[in-house]
Amino acid sequence: MSVNKAGATRSEVPRGLAGVVVADTRIGDVRGREGFYHYRQYSAVDLARGRSFEDVWHLLVHGDLPDARRSADFAARTAALRRLPGEVAAALPAVAAAGARAATGPDPLAGLRTGLSLLGAARGFRPVYDTDPEQRLSDTLVAAAAVPTLLTALYRLGRGLTPVEPRTDLSYAANYLYMLTGDEPEPRRARAVEQYLISTIDHGFNASTFTARVITSTGADVAAALVGAVGALSGPLHGGAPSRALDTLDAIGTPDRVDPWIRARVLAGERIMGFGHAVYRTEDPRSRMLREIAQEFGGPRVTFAVEVERQVEAILAELKPGRELHANVEFYAGVVMELCGVPREMFTPTFAAARVVGWSANILEQAEDKKIIRPAARYVGPEAPEPVAAA
Amino acid sequence: MSVNKAGATRSEVPRGLAGVVVADTRIGDVRGREGFYHYRQYSAVDLARGRSFEDVWHLLVHGDLPDARRSADFAARTAALRRLPGEVAAALPAVAAAGARAATGPDPLAGLRTGLSLLGAARGFRPVYDTDPEQRLSDTLVAAAAVPTLLTALYRLGRGLTPVEPRTDLSYAANYLYMLTGDEPEPRRARAVEQYLISTIDHGFNASTFTARVITSTGADVAAALVGAVGALSGPLHGGAPSRALDTLDAIGTPDRVDPWIRARVLAGERIMGFGHAVYRTEDPRSRMLREIAQEFGGPRVTFAVEVERQVEAILAELKPGRELHANVEFYAGVVMELCGVPREMFTPTFAAARVVGWSANILEQAEDKKIIRPAARYVGPEAPEPVAAA
Repeated sequence: MSVNKAGATRSEVPRGLAGVVVADTRIGDVRGREGFYHYRQYSAVDLARGRSFEDVWHLLVHGDLPDARRSADFAARTAALRRLPGEVAAALPAVAAAGARAATGPDPLAGLRTGLSLLGAARGFRPVYDTDPEQRLSDTLVAAAAVPTLLTALYRLGRGLTPVEPRTDLSYAANYLYMLTGDEPEPRRARAVEQYLISTIDHGFNASTFTARVITSTGADVAAALVGAVGALSGPLHGGAPSRALDTLDAIGTPDRVDPWIRARVLAGERIMGFGHAVYRTEDPRSRMLREIAQEFGGPRVTFAVEVERQVEAILAELKPGRELHANVEFYAGVVMELCGVPREMFTPTFAAARVVGWSANILEQAEDKKIIRPAARYVGPEAPEPVAAA
Repeated sequence: MSVNKAGATRSEVPRGLAGVVVADTRIGDVRGREGFYHYRQYSAVDLARGRSFEDVWHLLVHGDLPDARRSADFAARTAALRRLPGEVAAALPAVAAAGARAATGPDPLAGLRTGLSLLGAARGFRPVYDTDPEQRLSDTLVAAAAVPTLLTALYRLGRGLTPVEPRTDLSYAANYLYMLTGDEPEPRRARAVEQYLISTIDHGFNASTFTARVITSTGADVAAALVGAVGALSGPLHGGAPSRALDTLDAIGTPDRVDPWIRARVLAGERIMGFGHAVYRTEDPRSRMLREIAQEFGGPRVTFAVEVERQVEAILAELKPGRELHANVEFYAGVVMELCGVPREMFTPTFAAARVVGWSANILEQAEDKKIIRPAARYVGPEAPEPVAAA
C-alpha cells in the first residue's frame, strides 16, 4: 500500500494484474498446477466428451445442465436465432468490402466485431442496468447464436461466394461447418469440432473475458461488451496462435527434420508456437482430449503431429529442464480443425464462436454486480503543473 | 494475500479495482482532493483556456506541446484525415438503417462503435505489437480524426439528411459543429465547444480508458481498442449523464420550484443528476471553467442553471453534511453544449469525440508495455468436479 499526493490510499499489484483476484465467480476455474479446469461444478473435458455444445451453453448461462426436455427446448430456441435480421444481412456485403480493400486482406475478427456491433444496434440492445435478467439472457443468446452466421457470411462474401442460410435442424457445430462450406458435414467431423468448441468456451479471467466484464460494469449493452471482447481476442497474445502451430508443422515438413529445426529455434531463444501455457504446469487437459480426437481420425498428418509433439517435449525437457513445456490447446486444435475442413484463417474465429458463450456467462454474472470497474494509475511523468505557454 | 487450491499465491483487491494502481503512466493524473487534474505536466484547465484542441492532442500523443510550426503541421495532418475512406462512407447508410430500425431509436455510440470497427478494417490496421511506434501513432490519428465525421454522418443519415463533407480549413471543434448542422458555427461557439472538448480528453484510468488498455495489452489493433472503449463509454455509469443533467433543469422549470423539487428527491434517496463525482471532493475544476464559459454567453437559461447549482449545493450541504457534493462536469457541459447548438442525443457522442484522444494516448503508452493484462477470479460455486450425467 502507498499514499499518493492527494492522500488517498492505493494498493499496488503485480504488472498485468497477474494472479490478482478481481472478482468472485460461479462460472468456473482453472487449476493450472493440477492440469484441470471446470465450468460450474463439472470438468470441462468431461462435458466435451459427454454433452452437446448447446447443453454446455445452457450450463454456462442458466447455471445448470438441462434435462432432456430443456435440452431440446434450449437447442430449438438458440437455433431459431441463427438467422440475421434483414438490415444486418443487407449491410454485410459493405462490411466485407471494407475489409477486403485493406492491404492485409480481410480480417475475420474485425468483420465479426463490426457485425456484432451492427446486430446489437439492429436488435435495440439496451444498457444492461436498464434491463431485467431475462432480457439480458435473451440478448446474449441473440448475439451468440448469430456469431457463426456472421463469421461464415463474411468469410464467403470475402471470397465472392453467396452466404449460406443457417439451418435449424443441425447442431450449432454442424450448422457452422455447413454454413462455412455449403455442405452438410460428416457427423464425426461435426462432433469433433463440437468437442473442440466445448473445450474452449471459458478459461478463467483471460483478457477478452475481463474486457467483457469491464465494459459490462459500466452498464453498457451486451453487444458493447462482446465487441470489446472480440477486439481483445484478436490480439496475437490472446487468440492468435492456432494457425501458427500448424504453420510450424508445415515448416518442419518431415519427421527427420524435427530435431534440428526445433533445436535451432530453442537455442536462438525463439518460442515454439503450440507449446507452453501461461497457466498449466502439466499437460494441458484440452490438448490431451484433442489429441485423442485427432488419433481417432488417424492418417499421416496426425501421426506426424504426435511425433513432433513427442520430440519437441523431449528437446524442451533437455534444453529447458524444469520448465514443464507441453503442447498447448492450440497445437491439436489446429490439427483437429484441419481434419474437419476448417480453413486456417478461420481457426481463431472458430475459437470466438465458442468463447462467445463464456463471455455471455461472464456478462450476465457481472451485470448482477452493478459496480463499475475503474482502477487507478501512478503518474510518473514530469512534475505538474508547469505554466502553459502559447504556441 | 491468500493461497488457492492450486497453491498459487493470489492477492485480493478492492471491489471494482477502486484505488488499485494497475500501471505507471506519463499521460496525466487526477488529484481529487485538490480539485486538480493534469495532462502530462500541464493543468488541463489551463490548456483548455490557452491552447487549441489540436495542440493538446499533440501533447497527449507526442508528449509535448508543439511550437507554432509543429502546431500548424499537426493541425493540417489531422484535418487531412477527416474524410472517410470511400468504402466506409458507402457502408454508413446501412449502419444508420440498422440502428434506426431498433425500437429504442438510433444509438449514436452504437453507430460510432460500428463505424470505427469498419474504418479499422478498411484502413488495414494491424496488431500493435506487429507495428512500429510511428505506424501506431498514425493509426490513432486516422481513427480519432474520423470520429466527428462518423458521428455527424450517422446523426444526419438517421434523420434523412445528407452527411456534410468535412472541411480542412476549420478547427477540429468548428468542423464538428459544421458537419453536425451544415452551417459554419459562430467563432465563440466553436471555441466554447473546443474548450469543453479539451477539458474532457482524459481523466485517469476511467473504465473506457482501462478497456482500451486491456485490449491493447493483447496486441490487438487500434480500432479493436477504440471500439471497446466506445462500448464502455456507452454505459450509463460512465458516459451517460450530461443530457440527464439538462433534463433535471427542464423538470425543475422555474427558480421557485428548485427547493421543493430537490428536497423531495434527496429525501427519497434519489441521486440528483449533475451533482457529485467519484473522485472530486472539492468543486470539479471542469465545472468551474464551463460555468464561466456559460456565463460569458449569459441569458436566462444560464442564470437559471447558476441559481439551481447554488440552491442544490446549499440543500445538499444541509441534508448531507460533510459529503461535499458539487456540480460535476456534466452539469455545465450540458448547458454549454445546448448554448452551442449541440442536440442532447449528441452530448455523450461529443464527449467521445474528445475522449478518443485520451484513449489514443493510453493505447500508445500501453503498446510499449507488451505485457498482457490478465487478472484472476476466485471460484465460489459448488465444489468441482461432479460427474456429468447424460441429458
